Amino acid sequence: MIGVFDSGFGGLTVLSALLRELPDYDYLYLADSARAPYGARSAEVVNEFTLEAVDWLFEQGCPLVVLACNTASARALRNLQQLHLPKRWPDRRVLGVVRPSVEALAGIPVGTVAIPDANCHLIGDNLVRASGAEADELVAVLGTEATIASDSYGMELRKLAPWIRVVQQACPLWVPLVEAGEIDGEGTEYFLRKALAPLLPPNEAPKRVLLGCTHYPLLLPVLRRIFSADTEILDQGPLVAERLADWIRRHPEQEANLTRGGTRRYCTTDDPEWFAARGGKLLGSSIQAERVRLRG
Amino acid sequence: MIGVFDSGFGGLTVLSALLRELPDYDYLYLADSARAPYGARSAEVVNEFTLEAVDWLFEQGCPLVVLACNTASARALRNLQQLHLPKRWPDRRVLGVVRPSVEALAGIPVGTVAIPDANCHLIGDNLVRASGAEADELVAVLGTEATIASDSYGMELRKLAPWIRVVQQACPLWVPLVEAGEIDGEGTEYFLRKALAPLLPPNEAPKRVLLGCTHYPLLLPVLRRIFSADTEILDQGPLVAERLADWIRRHPEQEANLTRGGTRRYCTTDDPEWFAARGGKLLGSSIQAERVRLRG
Repeated sequence: MIGVFDSGFGGLTVLSALLRELPDYDYLYLADSARAPYGARSAEVVNEFTLEAVDWLFEQGCPLVVLACNTASARALRNLQQLHLPKRWPDRRVLGVVRPSVEALAGIPVGTVAIPDANCHLIGDNLVRASGAEADELVAVLGTEATIASDSYGMELRKLAPWIRVVQQACPLWVPLVEAGEIDGEGTEYFLRKALAPLLPPNEAPKRVLLGCTHYPLLLPVLRRIFSADTEILDQGPLVAERLADWIRRHPEQEANLTRGGTRRYCTTDDPEWFAARGGKLLGSSIQAERVRLRG
Repeated sequence: MIGVFDSGFGGLTVLSALLRELPDYDYLYLADSARAPYGARSAEVVNEFTLEAVDWLFEQGCPLVVLACNTASARALRNLQQLHLPKRWPDRRVLGVVRPSVEALAGIPVGTVAIPDANCHLIGDNLVRASGAEADELVAVLGTEATIASDSYGMELRKLAPWIRVVQQACPLWVPLVEAGEIDGEGTEYFLRKALAPLLPPNEAPKRVLLGCTHYPLLLPVLRRIFSADTEILDQGPLVAERLADWIRRHPEQEANLTRGGTRRYCTTDDPEWFAARGGKLLGSSIQAERVRLRG
């Protein structure tokens, strides 16, 4: 099984794109709904909660776990990859959504390997200079307080695409708005405009905006109204899924561990019926969920 | 020590009123900030989290715990009092905020004992008929989704004050708004008016409105603008503190276990510095906090 983790049901937007790219594998989705949202929690707490979730997915037998949650990717992935896995799960892998998103922003073609700090990437054995076509382009990354405070997007972008000027904007309340089903209407637009003020006239408009949180694609209709048509809004799900699929293809030794039964299992730490109702709506198909407990 | 529990820092509004009524005792405040807010979580999860918090406070030596959190009081108090305490902590006591709030709404004088279902209460040995002065009065109780879904206020009000017509109104997003520091402004007013629509013209205006969540008093200025001057808005903190103080005075066998050193200790399951900053602002004095872990 491929494990997919998110603090809530928002990560289903990533799962859904993964299922389109790689439908044959078995998937286990875990939502920590009982402790969501993570976006305003401290680095320490996000680390602990993510570790518990990843351990649980490994214990269920997942050889590979995708952190669909940006907050978890930004706050916990490095610790997981550098400290936790080598110690406890040396044969397993955890991937996050920050790096593939940044590769997409940097215009690095799928199937190539970026060389940090060199403005270059490898296509097969050929070193290719990054285009930098849009020198000095202004790009905005929107995320939770924790994601933005971590500067994960900033650090990766400075390494892979130093010609991009990046504005990282924390968007408090957006996740609670989506969780409350308030994805449109005046109040929602107010809080979207409030967070986006630095990116709206009279300030310079970004050429591209990355939605760096799994919940934000649900706000796309309002965001489309707020930004001018010259600004491209990037939904992370498809970008990330495409690159994760490529990662799996390029790692046959990992791929060999993945089972291909086409099954999907949905687990949540809070009410499974609520999750199945909300999740099914988001996926566009009826699902069943079960409740599980995470412990440190 | 008297233990005071809330899912977040909002319960400090109750603690603050308790400190005014009973300043001499020692207090231990616990906020489960790492898993807050509780208001949209399932009954099962609120029960589990509250149990862990109360166990922790008992383990710290508190003979008496006050659930300042309405969601926890509404969802977990009965289970705690009827099942958990007799089994594990027969000498300890847990009190909630629903019952004292309802006694206040019912006009039952402090120091008397209400007789459920009889429209009566005891003053000393005298059975006194409840006044029912405001027969048919419309009262609104505002709370989180979980508090309102539990019908705890409805059940208690029907028992103690059947002459009151009660409207219970869930107020999604109000806690996230307060947690995000959005206690004023257009967006906040939009979501307050949206939840309150059943209580605003052309609908019948309530004579009294109880703020059944520790966070809501922080929204008082906007609420005062929304309701007409004929509607009385009741802040729960002082009402509850007065009756808890009375309960302690009427239970000398419990009072004897409470230490009187005038100390206050603040614990949270997330970042203590964030909590101390927000909490200190709310209490109007500088505080220090420490991080603790809760486990089932």
